[in-house]
Amino acid sequence: MSRYEQHRSFLKSNFNEFKSIKTDKMKGIAQPPSVKSYGLSDNIINLPKVSEGVVKKSNIYECIKDRRSTRFYADESISLEELSYLLWATQGISGTTKAGLTLRTVPCSGATHCFETYLFITKVQGIKRGIYRYLPVEHKLLFMFELDEIDKKIDEITLEQPFVPNFAKKAAVLFVWSATPYRSEWKFDITAHKKILIDIGHVCQNLYLASESVDAGICAIAIYDQKMIDELLSLDGSEEFTVYLAAVGKKLEK
Amino acid sequence: MSRYEQHRSFLKSNFNEFKSIKTDKMKGIAQPPSVKSYGLSDNIINLPKVSEGVVKKSNIYECIKDRRSTRFYADESISLEELSYLLWATQGISGTTKAGLTLRTVPCSGATHCFETYLFITKVQGIKRGIYRYLPVEHKLLFMFELDEIDKKIDEITLEQPFVPNFAKKAAVLFVWSATPYRSEWKFDITAHKKILIDIGHVCQNLYLASESVDAGICAIAIYDQKMIDELLSLDGSEEFTVYLAAVGKKLEK
Repeated sequence: MSRYEQHRSFLKSNFNEFKSIKTDKMKGIAQPPSVKSYGLSDNIINLPKVSEGVVKKSNIYECIKDRRSTRFYADESISLEELSYLLWATQGISGTTKAGLTLRTVPCSGATHCFETYLFITKVQGIKRGIYRYLPVEHKLLFMFELDEIDKKIDEITLEQPFVPNFAKKAAVLFVWSATPYRSEWKFDITAHKKILIDIGHVCQNLYLASESVDAGICAIAIYDQKMIDELLSLDGSEEFTVYLAAVGKKLEK
Repeated sequence: MSRYEQHRSFLKSNFNEFKSIKTDKMKGIAQPPSVKSYGLSDNIINLPKVSEGVVKKSNIYECIKDRRSTRFYADESISLEELSYLLWATQGISGTTKAGLTLRTVPCSGATHCFETYLFITKVQGIKRGIYRYLPVEHKLLFMFELDEIDKKIDEITLEQPFVPNFAKKAAVLFVWSATPYRSEWKFDITAHKKILIDIGHVCQNLYLASESVDAGICAIAIYDQKMIDELLSLDGSEEFTVYLAAVGKKLEK
């Protein structure tokens, strides 16, 4: 099978193959947690309660109509209330199943929720520049570390592509989503991976529309330096690794 | 490399590998069209002009908050105006680039737009049951054919999974998205395929929110009989094949 055929076949439903596989779930192996743990000594930051009050363009029709990828941003911070809303819109917990699984603002195959959200923050009011992780259950932020020359690092990670937002000077926050594939493999085995990519698309589209509703622009980024960003976030590159990015910042005046 | 490692590696950014490849775009090969053609004798059906008038829940915050996968539907048709709005929200054309590429209501890597939308219609007012294709440029439907026992066929295609919507009795329309991978391979070569899956996630999330805004429920379906559905739609399974499905129908009264 050629590389193309192999890659194309990855896009297909392979349910028939799946039928002959005994998944870890079927074997009675306990389900892995759907969120990454953290320590008691970690630096946890409260987020403002999610509020509709931050929404400026509340009409969904207008948000869908006006959505565009934005590659240049105003030199303006976003508020912590806005960030709280964007995090909720992308990975916020909006319920639980009878079995105790989290339901979120985005659909996910098997409610397995394979993603962690890391933030490279450069311009958010009331919060210092640095690298953070979102804690969806608590709806809080975990401060991970400060990063020297964060703007330059982001440029390096996104390979200074001319079509990538000029993040260093303009955007306010870079969303970095990691995947922890075993959360889905436990249930779907080798058919998990197609679903993971579709699911991160669900997540990012909510970020597009929610950003539009708070007058912020966004540009999703699928091309990035895998090794550099995984190492920066101390992800092992196998059990957890970066899967997609999106820059968000206030729109330029029209 | 094990199957797991191979599949996991597919989720990663392989830009470094891409850098050494000469894409068809670089070779000067003409860009393939981003929509499938049709014939002058085809049966084309006008869709009502997209109108905000169909939206019942216009508040984006509420739509994001209330979104759920819906597995049971009311025995009620959706209107052609609602279908027109859902098609626009998922693949509608909302602009063009300077280079003449279409911009749509959903973002897509490189504006390559690899998808076609097929509809299995069972309950839409003013339109007969059957199989249709959406023409995004014209914002019209192309009637493909009637299908005997369409409900039963849909059950077969979705493998009668207990967790799949009981489409046969309940949902009004099944969205079936195909991918035409060369549209993206032309520009991104072997790095195209990850992007295609993320992009169909963008599309489907808009369908989730737009459906919520017209009081319709939706359930995305990633597990389906690839061969059966591709053959039914006369897709060759290589240059074009089904990539994702979603059932949509009016919500049951609460």
